[in-house]
Amino acid sequence: MTGSGINDVLLSRTRNARVLHESGIRRPPLGKTSRVADELGNELAEVVGAAHVLTDPDTRADYETDWTGRFGAPSRLVVRPATTHEVSAIVRICARHRAPIVPQGGNTGLVGGGVPRSGQVLLSLRRLAAVSAVDPIGRRLVAGAGATLAAVQRAASAAGLEFAVDLASRDSATVGGMVATNAGGIRVIRYGTMRAQLLGIEAVLADGSVVSRLSAPAHGNGGYDLIGLLAGSEGTLGVITRVALRLVPAETERAVALIGVDSTAAAVRIATGLRGLTVIDALEIFYADGLALVRARSGLRRPLESEWAAYVLAEVAGAGAEMRLGSALAALGLDDVALAVAPDDRRRLWSYRETLTEAIAAEGVPHKLDVALPLDQLSAFVAAVVPLVASYSAAARCVLFGHLGVGNLHVNVLGFAKDDRRVDDAVLRLVADLGGSIGAEHGIGAAKRDWLRLTRSAEDITAMRSIKRALDPHELLNPGVLLPPAD
Amino acid sequence: MTGSGINDVLLSRTRNARVLHESGIRRPPLGKTSRVADELGNELAEVVGAAHVLTDPDTRADYETDWTGRFGAPSRLVVRPATTHEVSAIVRICARHRAPIVPQGGNTGLVGGGVPRSGQVLLSLRRLAAVSAVDPIGRRLVAGAGATLAAVQRAASAAGLEFAVDLASRDSATVGGMVATNAGGIRVIRYGTMRAQLLGIEAVLADGSVVSRLSAPAHGNGGYDLIGLLAGSEGTLGVITRVALRLVPAETERAVALIGVDSTAAAVRIATGLRGLTVIDALEIFYADGLALVRARSGLRRPLESEWAAYVLAEVAGAGAEMRLGSALAALGLDDVALAVAPDDRRRLWSYRETLTEAIAAEGVPHKLDVALPLDQLSAFVAAVVPLVASYSAAARCVLFGHLGVGNLHVNVLGFAKDDRRVDDAVLRLVADLGGSIGAEHGIGAAKRDWLRLTRSAEDITAMRSIKRALDPHELLNPGVLLPPAD
Repeated sequence: MTGSGINDVLLSRTRNARVLHESGIRRPPLGKTSRVADELGNELAEVVGAAHVLTDPDTRADYETDWTGRFGAPSRLVVRPATTHEVSAIVRICARHRAPIVPQGGNTGLVGGGVPRSGQVLLSLRRLAAVSAVDPIGRRLVAGAGATLAAVQRAASAAGLEFAVDLASRDSATVGGMVATNAGGIRVIRYGTMRAQLLGIEAVLADGSVVSRLSAPAHGNGGYDLIGLLAGSEGTLGVITRVALRLVPAETERAVALIGVDSTAAAVRIATGLRGLTVIDALEIFYADGLALVRARSGLRRPLESEWAAYVLAEVAGAGAEMRLGSALAALGLDDVALAVAPDDRRRLWSYRETLTEAIAAEGVPHKLDVALPLDQLSAFVAAVVPLVASYSAAARCVLFGHLGVGNLHVNVLGFAKDDRRVDDAVLRLVADLGGSIGAEHGIGAAKRDWLRLTRSAEDITAMRSIKRALDPHELLNPGVLLPPAD
Repeated sequence: MTGSGINDVLLSRTRNARVLHESGIRRPPLGKTSRVADELGNELAEVVGAAHVLTDPDTRADYETDWTGRFGAPSRLVVRPATTHEVSAIVRICARHRAPIVPQGGNTGLVGGGVPRSGQVLLSLRRLAAVSAVDPIGRRLVAGAGATLAAVQRAASAAGLEFAVDLASRDSATVGGMVATNAGGIRVIRYGTMRAQLLGIEAVLADGSVVSRLSAPAHGNGGYDLIGLLAGSEGTLGVITRVALRLVPAETERAVALIGVDSTAAAVRIATGLRGLTVIDALEIFYADGLALVRARSGLRRPLESEWAAYVLAEVAGAGAEMRLGSALAALGLDDVALAVAPDDRRRLWSYRETLTEAIAAEGVPHKLDVALPLDQLSAFVAAVVPLVASYSAAARCVLFGHLGVGNLHVNVLGFAKDDRRVDDAVLRLVADLGGSIGAEHGIGAAKRDWLRLTRSAEDITAMRSIKRALDPHELLNPGVLLPPAD
């Protein structure tokens, strides 16, 4: 699919936001807060213009709830700057008012890290959407934080290059948010996460100062890695305003295979086998229950001759892609396989995987737990997590899919109230017990910070907290996100 | 070459160190310092054993001067732990005594970042040299900070994989030091620097606490990127004790071309052309003067039919390497080219490039300035830097070579006293004027910190200093390195 599916979901954001507002989570504004908000709003309006300070609950609603409908709360106001200079001025004003800020990109986040927890200033970066000309020699471009992934991809393609990260929400997700969460996506196995694409960054720190490392040459390297530190810091150390992104050569040949397997263990064996035989661009997994949801919603036909317990989707790119993928499949002795080379055929195979998110969301508000396991524990995890979730409720369902090649699974749990965190607790503890990580490509956010101690030691969290205190001593930037509450 | 050349140089370290000691730089120990050193030494000896606390000037000498002979001073003592636990105990003891520490790996650094400035405790990590078994599924291994690059390469090869970073000092350089300086090497154009190889890290912080991120799965991602932050921090934020390193598939086919060119501009055109045609593993440049030094020292024959102003060395790896490189060279219409496929032939071509460092060092104590330029400024830089250096002294010589593909040049200046920094200043200002970076793969160290402001803004340095203060409030770890002196 080309993103239209996810856009259907995104269009329903307003509905979700209304539900939240009507559900009573919205707190009545206190007199004092209201008056201060007016002063703050007036000062911010002088910076960005009154039209870009949203105080009316209806106009704010789209920004205040994440698209799954699980996370969100009313903001104090929404402010929409258009330049780095305006972001800096906003942060200085908020610092003076001690008004906490939640930075937001395309609001496609899944861990409650980009929506208010209660009454923060919501700083929308979407208007910082400029994409520079491509530098074909340096193979880079500079994009505003609010540029969508699709806009960056289009700019790269127009110059005969590609941007290496791709994910299903490409038409809505912004590069600023993707850097802030260190997003991965479907090609992470070949090219790494967003952090690996960063050649430079510009960010506004908590005191309003602007740190810029946009112009350095690709291999320039002096001083601490502020670029990598801001990547994945989920808006808690600085507001990312622009990024310099590396581009990679465009691959003209591609081949995609959908492979039926009878177990997770078989999928891991195939994944390892394929990687040993050729360079793989994408290596995904989904299961029979997810396929059933997708087919029921989309009307897509059965993809393979037989029904299988699980499906592996593999993509190879570059010279001889079809031959390389075909030989690798033959060498592994795989039989029930659909192989696609023409763009439409490849898109059709991908649609089984890419419409899953939408199909799951149509069933209710999922608890989405994005985790990573060592590959040799993936099978044990899958075998344990399904009965574990079922043990909490007869109505519970657990739909799994993910980036097989890097052990990154998305655990989608349906059938629990939004605030019922028992199942989150059980699943994340299982991950930790198996040597996994409770976060992979969505960030920690507000959703998982209470469990960060499962996989980060006290010394590690102390070090992170020291860095947070050093750069944001008044907890102005995205409080309540990433770092666990103090003991 | 296989590193024997550089080892000749390293064997002469003792001589250099003696020269330094005899030159009068060594300060006579003060009564008070001496007594405190005894207490400190006794406490450290309880941790590591008396045999691993070196206080005698002769046994310390090898650790106290860098191998070029430009940097170094006597230490307070040298301590040689064997485990992370011992490192932690040493740091706690030094913290109590407020005794500053200089961590050191293989002492192959080039910016004075791993040798004492005056009387610090030298913490040698060489005994932490264990290399774990290779995990073939996760494609990783865990190495102690003191493991040499060659030891890591051997372990990877034995498992049918490769370690992606390679550089000429492979038999002496340790992975801890390479991570601390974020070393690049000859394959950075394909695989990135050391930071890009890091799947995990274990480090002792300034309070003696141990932060470990060794066991997380490859794609695990939760919290600030302490791994990337410690990489390139040059021992100022923590003492790296172990690293988990990603491995890449072994390439069985390789082809190397040495190409004569008449200018830097032509070299850049060829580099860009080759990269547009195929994936390149290495893309190096050196000049006629460097070749003359190498040939005079080694007796190697003229590599190409004609003499050229500059030489580009390109390596391609993987399926069809010879064909891919050959076609790319033909497409670019290059004629005076030596192409090598057999291992011995490839090694011979590489020897022109890899013995350069040694040949330059044989001429005197060079000022080694490792810088990066945007590719479109490389030619302007080379045209300007040679007369600039010559303008300071008739005896001055400027030998250039480097990693062409990423704009990383090593500027070797001969004919200046060790402490005469006028030429360093002039060259680094030229780099900054052309939009380059004053550091690339050697670190900033003590050598270049006074110029960091040329390419890092006041806001950037303030942010870095805040992080340093947060993690090392008493300036225990490698003071005088990386961060510029306070205004």
